[in-house]
Amino acid sequence: VAARFHEPPRLPIGFSCATTNCGLKPSEPDLALFYSETPAAAAAIFTRNQFPGAPVMVGRELIKGGRLQAIVVNSRVSNVGTGAAGVEIARRMGRAAAAELNIAPELVLMSSTGVIGVPLPIEKIENGLRGLRSQLQTDPLIAARGIMTTDRHPKAISTSVGSATLSIIAKGAGMIEPNMATMLCYMFTDAELAADKLDEMLRRAASVSLNMLSVDTDTSTSDTCAILANGKAGRVDEAEFYAALEAACIRITEILARDGEGATKLLRASVVGAASPEEARIIAKAIVNSPLIKTMAHGADPNVGRILMAIGKNFECTIVNERVRANINGTPVVEGGMRAQFDDAQLREVLKGDPVEIAVDLGVGVGSAIAYGCDLTEGYITENASYYSS
Amino acid sequence: VAARFHEPPRLPIGFSCATTNCGLKPSEPDLALFYSETPAAAAAIFTRNQFPGAPVMVGRELIKGGRLQAIVVNSRVSNVGTGAAGVEIARRMGRAAAAELNIAPELVLMSSTGVIGVPLPIEKIENGLRGLRSQLQTDPLIAARGIMTTDRHPKAISTSVGSATLSIIAKGAGMIEPNMATMLCYMFTDAELAADKLDEMLRRAASVSLNMLSVDTDTSTSDTCAILANGKAGRVDEAEFYAALEAACIRITEILARDGEGATKLLRASVVGAASPEEARIIAKAIVNSPLIKTMAHGADPNVGRILMAIGKNFECTIVNERVRANINGTPVVEGGMRAQFDDAQLREVLKGDPVEIAVDLGVGVGSAIAYGCDLTEGYITENASYYSS
Repeated sequence: VAARFHEPPRLPIGFSCATTNCGLKPSEPDLALFYSETPAAAAAIFTRNQFPGAPVMVGRELIKGGRLQAIVVNSRVSNVGTGAAGVEIARRMGRAAAAELNIAPELVLMSSTGVIGVPLPIEKIENGLRGLRSQLQTDPLIAARGIMTTDRHPKAISTSVGSATLSIIAKGAGMIEPNMATMLCYMFTDAELAADKLDEMLRRAASVSLNMLSVDTDTSTSDTCAILANGKAGRVDEAEFYAALEAACIRITEILARDGEGATKLLRASVVGAASPEEARIIAKAIVNSPLIKTMAHGADPNVGRILMAIGKNFECTIVNERVRANINGTPVVEGGMRAQFDDAQLREVLKGDPVEIAVDLGVGVGSAIAYGCDLTEGYITENASYYSS
Repeated sequence: VAARFHEPPRLPIGFSCATTNCGLKPSEPDLALFYSETPAAAAAIFTRNQFPGAPVMVGRELIKGGRLQAIVVNSRVSNVGTGAAGVEIARRMGRAAAAELNIAPELVLMSSTGVIGVPLPIEKIENGLRGLRSQLQTDPLIAARGIMTTDRHPKAISTSVGSATLSIIAKGAGMIEPNMATMLCYMFTDAELAADKLDEMLRRAASVSLNMLSVDTDTSTSDTCAILANGKAGRVDEAEFYAALEAACIRITEILARDGEGATKLLRASVVGAASPEEARIIAKAIVNSPLIKTMAHGADPNVGRILMAIGKNFECTIVNERVRANINGTPVVEGGMRAQFDDAQLREVLKGDPVEIAVDLGVGVGSAIAYGCDLTEGYITENASYYSS
């Protein structure tokens, strides 16, 4: 399925969103609200980091109900490492949104993203939510702005499945190797789907998209990915819906990767012929995570021996040197475990492209996987050497 | 044991070295030779990368004999990913050194370091070795220059053990997460020690020093660490020798870390109270490997919440949030799993220091470990975006 994405993106029937500045950032939007007119079937997955943020702890409980009607999100402060007080503040944030929308508090998921370990100024959020209901509208890019941290642009896509719509709003540029989802990623559809089916499809789609994304190997404490289905467009073909969901998840993953902190291009590692799918995933991740591969892509430097290094450093995987082949955007660079014959100047031009796709055939089995990352540039350093202070 | 290191460093009795330019680099030394007057008991450990260089493959065979008399090393080209032809070239390199020194070829270990995947111009090395015997001398810094790649300075230390001397010459600044030793590291002693004892001590010392070093998470294909003991100073107390060896290995590890590509400071992560030594090692490594911790150290940005992130992202380790404590160079920054009270401006001053030591107490067991790394700066990017081409 070659999914077509709406331009501009839109929200499904019955969904709306709003954003405002509540004083966490100087003037940019820092608070966003997503709302469904009626309660929706829902599923969510969260970070595996063992220091989960307070909203993640509360969210894990909430999602057990399989129903949500709203999501409230702030940026700038993450409410992580804040103890029992932080958990109570997360609940207050959910209650404030529920009061504004006149819905039950247990139908409101909350997220906070930004600096770790400082208290969340909850009064600012409570004040900011007052009256926000009157500003609800249907352009997802508006709320996508309110959840940005170091993102360079708001991220929202949508696609059609039969008569239904599927929309994804996401943010995240650094501290990204999700192992579940990336950062904050909200999906809305007016298709009619049960919560357990949503959960199954969300996990499956994330395993080949968001979970294969790495900007910098650092797993956030706040990763949250939720999907809400309010049923207003009726039933859809489930296989067709899953295909659209997977395609949309891959698209948003590529958008997040390309906007990685300091990144100038998307880096894709495609591994086939591995002894198992798990080994394919490990090697694909190792390639997009290697600082030396990332800087090679950045500098368009044809130092392709680094691909052998990045494959070989996975000590537990089955590697038969003489069977390994690789190409970059179609140009063979490794044959029989050795550097292939190619023209340096020509490969330099290939490496200047975007995306840079490194395709590896290990030649030992049928396991395959694709991982998504970005190049590593001076911009990543500049951004992260003073994130807290700036 | 607070080891004392000689200033300047020297080689033990009976060892000498030489270096020259053989034409691999424009004019700097690129070929080095280490020599013992008599055959020495020897042990060596090599990279675990599954694409080992040809010299590593040959070296693994050679070291089974437990005896070496010389080491020949070139920089600029690594002879990795070069197939059967590369293995024959590695052997030719050893034979050429043996002929020059008039010793048996099986007593010569060879190493090559530099770009991966291009053929090693063996004729240049053979020509360069001719007459090099006449230049053998006892200053280890001379040969240390000949094995440098992106190192900013030559690395050699020495210390006394009873009447014996222990010297270490090393190189390595990038593609460093050894899992065995780092890069190229040669140790020489005139103490009398058997090969199997050397092997045991080398592995034990490397496990708490070189194997706990990471500059950039990328494991080289050429890592080689060898120790030669020619016995000319007679027997030494074994416990005393081991203590000196471990202290010297830690010292050279810190020297390598601080000279990591683009680095401006040493980063040390010390973990205690872990459920096991292995979990302590995993968490200590995760801290020195985290790009967000490394950039925090670089920018002296008091964004200490990232320490919780770097601990928590180790999904399989035992973490009890409320027991976790951490300090940076003695200033408490995490208490009870939460950000501690501290003055931002004061911590900023602490972070400007060198080294930056992040000490973590997990409070769940008695496992401990120390890992060594460096900050991540724009210099790493600049250097690696054009290494092959420059």
